Amino acid sequence: METNKTLVSIVGAGPGDPDLLTVKAYRCIREADVILYDALIDERVIDLFPESAKCIYVGKRAEDGTCQDVRQNNIYELYRQFADKKLHVVRLKSGDPLIFARGVEEIRYLQEKGIPYEIVPGISAGLAGAAIFGIPLTERAVAPSLLLSSGVLLSEGLEHLKPSIALLKEGSAIIIYMSIKRMREIKTYLLQQGISAETGMVILSKISTPDQQKWVGTLEDVDAFLADGIPSPSLVVLGKNVHTLR
Amino acid sequence: METNKTLVSIVGAGPGDPDLLTVKAYRCIREADVILYDALIDERVIDLFPESAKCIYVGKRAEDGTCQDVRQNNIYELYRQFADKKLHVVRLKSGDPLIFARGVEEIRYLQEKGIPYEIVPGISAGLAGAAIFGIPLTERAVAPSLLLSSGVLLSEGLEHLKPSIALLKEGSAIIIYMSIKRMREIKTYLLQQGISAETGMVILSKISTPDQQKWVGTLEDVDAFLADGIPSPSLVVLGKNVHTLR
Repeated sequence: METNKTLVSIVGAGPGDPDLLTVKAYRCIREADVILYDALIDERVIDLFPESAKCIYVGKRAEDGTCQDVRQNNIYELYRQFADKKLHVVRLKSGDPLIFARGVEEIRYLQEKGIPYEIVPGISAGLAGAAIFGIPLTERAVAPSLLLSSGVLLSEGLEHLKPSIALLKEGSAIIIYMSIKRMREIKTYLLQQGISAETGMVILSKISTPDQQKWVGTLEDVDAFLADGIPSPSLVVLGKNVHTLR
Repeated sequence: METNKTLVSIVGAGPGDPDLLTVKAYRCIREADVILYDALIDERVIDLFPESAKCIYVGKRAEDGTCQDVRQNNIYELYRQFADKKLHVVRLKSGDPLIFARGVEEIRYLQEKGIPYEIVPGISAGLAGAAIFGIPLTERAVAPSLLLSSGVLLSEGLEHLKPSIALLKEGSAIIIYMSIKRMREIKTYLLQQGISAETGMVILSKISTPDQQKWVGTLEDVDAFLADGIPSPSLVVLGKNVHTLR
């Protein structure tokens, strides 16, 4: 049934290490006609791209002057062109396509245009980091929930962090992606809301790459850790019981 | 360096479909000397176990009268025995080992005993379900955070659901694992807390298996969906913008 053939696979590339691709993501990449990939895709994953595939970088270039909407429309245009040619496009997004990755907007476009697609989940960086460094995330009677949040999606006034307060108070962990630039502000906000400066904090940088690094301490240490200079991409894990076992 | 050889790999098996194993998890399974596996491991993953491996079921048997602590101690004893023999043990847990899987307790045991181990992350069922059925989880200006919660870890009085209220009110999504038995109670609690009966709800059962099913509606539909009988394992996704695109 040619008409039902999946033309676009929106694939989570995980945190970087190709070993953390899913089997399905690995196969999608190796069999792709076209690969559209973002800024954060690891060199080792790019090395897996088949020579026969047309590989197009569609990520953000620092200060390239292109606004997000123009870039997004370019991606839609590529989807349309390659779908017309019945080529299999792999849209590679770091982490998981549905977690802080604008995956949903692209899916809506494909749906509107009737382009058959599938979504292949990926290991989100926060969960990969927790596994690599042994960070307790959920635990019976200690940390019943886990919140994933994004510094980029936070409102200016940080009111989006409000639900975190109750979670931190009960002992649960929160992972804040893309938040380093706002950590001083976030620390001040959390302290004002009655969160202890002794709350466990782990900052992870370049998770699952040879350059990965961790900073382990408490909320109190934000300034000291920032003074080190934390290479991007990075994320912050906070919680009463947050520390590293490895 | 024989002494630093990883003796135990705590491996997330994902939701069921072997295609959703990570490349590393797949390799761990195929090269294992010993596999200790839980109740929810999919038959298709079990089919990957090498003939040469010693495969031991360590999951819960319905009404087998064995309490969780005894079962857990049996697992520790197996770790010890096989570590003495320098055999590579793969401890296979469904989903991700750090999300609602008692992974942390086993890790602490290994650490205490000085048994070299690693943790291999897996695709958690909720995130796999969202990818398969196209459920918007996070979205710029719409759903800034994502909460993972567990029905089993909820307190009797449901006060652990309190942080969900603020999240649902701002439009974010929550995934509640292992919660079907308490959904009537959870619905009543959420309505009492001012959450709209029109809040989007998707219930997913047997995610990534040939028998997977979805129920799509709103919080209002809890009773109607439960009347259908929802096969285990299942989970519930709630949120203003929660629906399925596929």
